[in-house]
Amino acid sequence: MEPQRKLQKLSWGIPASRMARNTFNPIRSIVDGMKLVPNPNKDMIVLSIGDPTVFGNLPIREEMEDALIHSIRSQKYNGYCPSVGYEKARAAVADYVTHHDAPVDFKDIILTSGCSGALDLCISCLANPGQNILIPRPGFSIYKTLAESLGIETKYYDLLPENSWEVDLVHLESLIDENTATIVVNNPSNPCGSVYSKGHLQDLLEIAERYKLPIIADEIYEHFVFSGSTYHSMASLSKNVPILSCSGLTKRFLVPGWRMGWIVINDKNNAFADEVRPGLVSLSQRILGPNTLVQAALEDILTKIPEHFYEETVSYVENNAKAFYKKMANIRGLNPIMPKGAMYMMIGIDMEKFPDFQDDVSFTQSMVTEQSVYCLPAKCFQYPNFFRVVLTTPENVLLEAGERIREFCEDHYRKSNTPEKNGLYQGYAYH
Amino acid sequence: MEPQRKLQKLSWGIPASRMARNTFNPIRSIVDGMKLVPNPNKDMIVLSIGDPTVFGNLPIREEMEDALIHSIRSQKYNGYCPSVGYEKARAAVADYVTHHDAPVDFKDIILTSGCSGALDLCISCLANPGQNILIPRPGFSIYKTLAESLGIETKYYDLLPENSWEVDLVHLESLIDENTATIVVNNPSNPCGSVYSKGHLQDLLEIAERYKLPIIADEIYEHFVFSGSTYHSMASLSKNVPILSCSGLTKRFLVPGWRMGWIVINDKNNAFADEVRPGLVSLSQRILGPNTLVQAALEDILTKIPEHFYEETVSYVENNAKAFYKKMANIRGLNPIMPKGAMYMMIGIDMEKFPDFQDDVSFTQSMVTEQSVYCLPAKCFQYPNFFRVVLTTPENVLLEAGERIREFCEDHYRKSNTPEKNGLYQGYAYH
Repeated sequence: MEPQRKLQKLSWGIPASRMARNTFNPIRSIVDGMKLVPNPNKDMIVLSIGDPTVFGNLPIREEMEDALIHSIRSQKYNGYCPSVGYEKARAAVADYVTHHDAPVDFKDIILTSGCSGALDLCISCLANPGQNILIPRPGFSIYKTLAESLGIETKYYDLLPENSWEVDLVHLESLIDENTATIVVNNPSNPCGSVYSKGHLQDLLEIAERYKLPIIADEIYEHFVFSGSTYHSMASLSKNVPILSCSGLTKRFLVPGWRMGWIVINDKNNAFADEVRPGLVSLSQRILGPNTLVQAALEDILTKIPEHFYEETVSYVENNAKAFYKKMANIRGLNPIMPKGAMYMMIGIDMEKFPDFQDDVSFTQSMVTEQSVYCLPAKCFQYPNFFRVVLTTPENVLLEAGERIREFCEDHYRKSNTPEKNGLYQGYAYH
Repeated sequence: MEPQRKLQKLSWGIPASRMARNTFNPIRSIVDGMKLVPNPNKDMIVLSIGDPTVFGNLPIREEMEDALIHSIRSQKYNGYCPSVGYEKARAAVADYVTHHDAPVDFKDIILTSGCSGALDLCISCLANPGQNILIPRPGFSIYKTLAESLGIETKYYDLLPENSWEVDLVHLESLIDENTATIVVNNPSNPCGSVYSKGHLQDLLEIAERYKLPIIADEIYEHFVFSGSTYHSMASLSKNVPILSCSGLTKRFLVPGWRMGWIVINDKNNAFADEVRPGLVSLSQRILGPNTLVQAALEDILTKIPEHFYEETVSYVENNAKAFYKKMANIRGLNPIMPKGAMYMMIGIDMEKFPDFQDDVSFTQSMVTEQSVYCLPAKCFQYPNFFRVVLTTPENVLLEAGERIREFCEDHYRKSNTPEKNGLYQGYAYH
């Protein structure tokens, strides 16, 4: 056959798809643009990575390793599983998450490759290209990454630092239009460490109910709450609003690398029955489920780890939060906001007091250059003039970092025209 | 704020996205439509599942378990890894796949959740919605599932059973148009068990070169070839054509559930440098890599398993293939095609001789009802009048199944107007 000459390109040079070009990780692009050269006279302290395993101070329970090794040695779990996961593993998750106000069984569970995989399935299933989803600001960047790569628009609803990062409900409602497909709620939250009250979650549900919008609840930090706060799942409070709750082993069980996530389908009203349930199953067939060995270990992991393991982890992080908050609250020009859960603290920068820096990116970059302390600028979470600190760090390291941050701020604080620290943000801390 | 009444829907009932609705597994929908009720007097023999672990006759090597347990007990691999995988694990894959005619290093490797994850990334990165990709018929259904869920069109190029399932090159070339983004080549192949010669692969590369089309080489069955055939990777033969080769631990190491796949970027001409490489990295950030424990075990798995383990597996399957072929070739109305590799045999049905059945679906369905033998109708691979048999089955089970298939065919063969079996397909067997 004569080659069809019109089709023949003159040179190689293969374009990437729009999807690839639109897949954009804001953290990566900001961080890659920073010059992160530590002070050679000081050891680097990295407070930027939301991974509880990096310092080695929070080892996992031996029962988890044993469960996984047991499933390896059994030689029964090397094969393919159903794309939504083994029924037994789904049942183990159902038993773990079921709640008297939101009962679920194995049919309501889809196992995924990490919580990112769960969020990907939920966003892909609920929204079309051209539609929009509402996501929090400041918020975890994966929602934007996942949605925009599929041509789904994201609209940010504001969180209010002065209200312990509660949602600005008026702002959220004003964003809803005829193309809005779902609201993503992250509670407890990364990067804020907020834990919403029952009343606030009910307010959110009321808006969703009014517009008949389903909710994607990113609850990967479920139960990760400090003393004085209570965790409520959205599903346990919802009367009618259908909810896809995403979670996994990553944070509570301290194994992000195991890539075991799940979706819990909460659908009291059968709003998901006709299309969304089968849609999620179809989408799960694209990749065929998470690692089967971890699936087979799920029942043991979710039932055999003693309660005090979680309590100790949370208490460790809470003590760090308190100590670090105290340190930050005494630094002129910084306004820490005390978290109520999760593993992070957001710290406001009174930029006027630091004229050496243009924004939180140059501020945190110089903190690396001068003090070898690396915190993530909140621009990574679409929020200006804050930085985020990871609280799973060993206490002595965290306090050493705190001391260096103090020194850094003192070095750059504009001495002239400085009223005493007026506690603008301090007051919010224990709300 | 007054609710925006125009936006308020009257009832729940949440639609699924087009992507979810377009995600379609042809095997599932055909199989789900079949009435698979076995004969209660005969044990069911399932020859339909392309999973080498189902019968327990092909156990994995203990070194693999040991490697994985070692990475668990080290407690060093519970955290997040780079989204493309640990550098050490990527280097282990690079060492394993590098070839003097297609040298690669760790930068050319992206680790994924199974080979499906690799194919998903490659298709997503190379084609836009509205463009088309060329895929084989008969062929594995995942290409269609992955592409069409993203709105990418698939065009089937024919494989020729009379030429040991070589590609109909004229047909393939005739399908190329200005919207063609890539050609998917599966070698060795599922469901055909074909292994292409060097010359045939060079012919395919020549077409790709002429139209400057990149190739996605699904080489998950690499090295899985019977005596008398040689496996050539597409990359080792390509002079200019950029190739994304997809493979993983699934088949050769007999662990599909471990979900460890990879992409090897072969790009002698830097055609992928500007867009496709960064695009693949961006896309990998959506899900954040495969299980880290398996990644950490990769080096041991790829270097410590003795060669005779593979040879024994392949030889086991080859012996089954020969014995089963012999059985099938002696059944009137069936035309088996001897595979050269992989784990499958395609068997043609001379439908005219079986007037009781409308097509391969009703034929295989009745084989379950009457003989409790379940083979996959080739309609699942977009191909009529064939069925596929999985050859990893224990030999006695496979031959028992063969005997029942013989009985089934004898029961239904149209006795009148029957010339002797003329070997229409027999002649191709050992080509």
